[in-house]
Amino acid sequence: MRFWKSDKSGPATPERRLALTAAEAAAFIDEVFPQVRGEIRIDGLEPMAARMRLLVSDQHLRPGGTVSGPALFMAADVAFYVAVLGMIGRQPLAVTSNLNITFMRRPQPTDVIAEARILKLGRRLASGDVTLYSQGRDEPVALAQTTYALPEAKG
Amino acid sequence: MRFWKSDKSGPATPERRLALTAAEAAAFIDEVFPQVRGEIRIDGLEPMAARMRLLVSDQHLRPGGTVSGPALFMAADVAFYVAVLGMIGRQPLAVTSNLNITFMRRPQPTDVIAEARILKLGRRLASGDVTLYSQGRDEPVALAQTTYALPEAKG
Amino acid sequence: MRFWKSDKSGPATPERRLALTAAEAAAFIDEVFPQVRGEIRIDGLEPMAARMRLLVSDQHLRPGGTVSGPALFMAADVAFYVAVLGMIGRQPLAVTSNLNITFMRRPQPTDVIAEARILKLGRRLASGDVTLYSQGRDEPVALAQTTYALPEAKG
Amino acid sequence: MRFWKSDKSGPATPERRLALTAAEAAAFIDEVFPQVRGEIRIDGLEPMAARMRLLVSDQHLRPGGTVSGPALFMAADVAFYVAVLGMIGRQPLAVTSNLNITFMRRPQPTDVIAEARILKLGRRLASGDVTLYSQGRDEPVALAQTTYALPEAKG
Repeated sequence: MRFWKSDKSGPATPERRLALTAAEAAAFIDEVFPQVRGEIRIDGLEPMAARMRLLVSDQHLRPGGTVSGPALFMAADVAFYVAVLGMIGRQPLAVTSNLNITFMRRPQPTDVIAEARILKLGRRLASGDVTLYSQGRDEPVALAQTTYALPEAKG
Repeated sequence: MRFWKSDKSGPATPERRLALTAAEAAAFIDEVFPQVRGEIRIDGLEPMAARMRLLVSDQHLRPGGTVSGPALFMAADVAFYVAVLGMIGRQPLAVTSNLNITFMRRPQPTDVIAEARILKLGRRLASGDVTLYSQGRDEPVALAQTTYALPEAKG
Repeated sequence: MRFWKSDKSGPATPERRLALTAAEAAAFIDEVFPQVRGEIRIDGLEPMAARMRLLVSDQHLRPGGTVSGPALFMAADVAFYVAVLGMIGRQPLAVTSNLNITFMRRPQPTDVIAEARILKLGRRLASGDVTLYSQGRDEPVALAQTTYALPEAKG
Repeated sequence: MRFWKSDKSGPATPERRLALTAAEAAAFIDEVFPQVRGEIRIDGLEPMAARMRLLVSDQHLRPGGTVSGPALFMAADVAFYVAVLGMIGRQPLAVTSNLNITFMRRPQPTDVIAEARILKLGRRLASGDVTLYSQGRDEPVALAQTTYALPEAKG
């Protein structure tokens, strides 16, 4: 009976096709969000979902060797943006409207894996969540829920 | 590659055992939250997760026949509380600290299914999410993320 | 130095005028949200802000005499909707997109005062917050942050 | 009638005294959060409230010259932490439990002012909000609501 959610979640419309590849999304992120260049890697992109890695380095670590909250926020925000780009294509005008993040466990000083799911892709808004893990751990370090505002052009 | 999240989520500590049965949880809810008596039904309870049904009637409907936001909030809040009760037992002092809910689709005028997952059960806080569906539909009508404050006694 | 926020917050465009009166908003709420008829009272409506009262009765109380979470959610949601109606007029298609509520103090078994502020009124989204008090108390029982999706018609 | 909220909000217990000065808080932040050294400046600290400035530089800007979302998140998170430090003193173990941020306006490429208020300072949790402005503008660019978990030691 476990994982009811997984029984149902995932692509709201499985037949949807990707508007661009992971490589194209990565190139676009480099262009519109140069700050994260070299800090992230897209590990997977599919309809309504993306998996991204935060390549953790000293700049992301707090004393004691835990990944900082802003670094986790960035990973969640960018991972969801990647999932959105996958569906709507190169669109710099898709912007975060709201992001709620709950920190659950002390991250390890290792890469952070961000798994983003779009649960609703509307004409004007895209909503979903992002689960953040320390590489190799099964228990999430944080869970984010977010809504992006999409440009009319998208419709 | 789909459902990465489901590959990992679910019970943080699978070996955990339930502190009470679905029937015991239902009886306790009736006692501490009499307003919802007759409005909800626990369809499943397992370690770190619960499935609950909002038995939708006129009191939950808005003109046009959609389930009201407060009714969806109640379903999410109570479903997560049921999941927490499953782990910590009869505990009236576990209280909602925060709940964030995003409304994604117009609910049908049918029962609402709430699937709650505890992603972190700490000594003082329990956090997770609740996905809400209209019965028989695969696409969520709303997604909630919540944190409950637990009484010290629990630890 | 206190209340920096209050120095700045409030109407984003003070010159804005109300699209309807408190009485007209109340009549419209009765029409589109009949469940709350008799449960709420609009105590004030002005550009970008509304003050509403939840007329607390047994249906809102939990054992021990505290106002239930769903009742506080409803008060916050409706109060913000009233503030939005004040700006955009009779508009049933303005819907809650997201609401985040943090419960801070045990409410008294008295009326709940909800003070809603619109901090951003866009063409497609209205965002702001709602502070909830137990009547006669100075310390908030809960704080909500919310975004409403507005119908294109509004623009 | 405007600014009801400001009539009431602010220090929950006005008589409370600061546990450290703005300079002591700044020194402590440098120590526990070295990443932000040189990026922030505490402009004000008082019981239950803090005003902080994000000294915006290229690292915070997106193409087009707007401040990035992660930079705004960091400003909100650190500003609230400063307000908490003001009340509980040098306490590295106070950690963000949850932060919800709504982006309202395109920030200017200028310093960001973060105004944090603690609305509830409990034994285990501190909750409140942070309003973010572009320097010299009256309308907020973002509003955050957050809860920090406090170490038992604090009580």
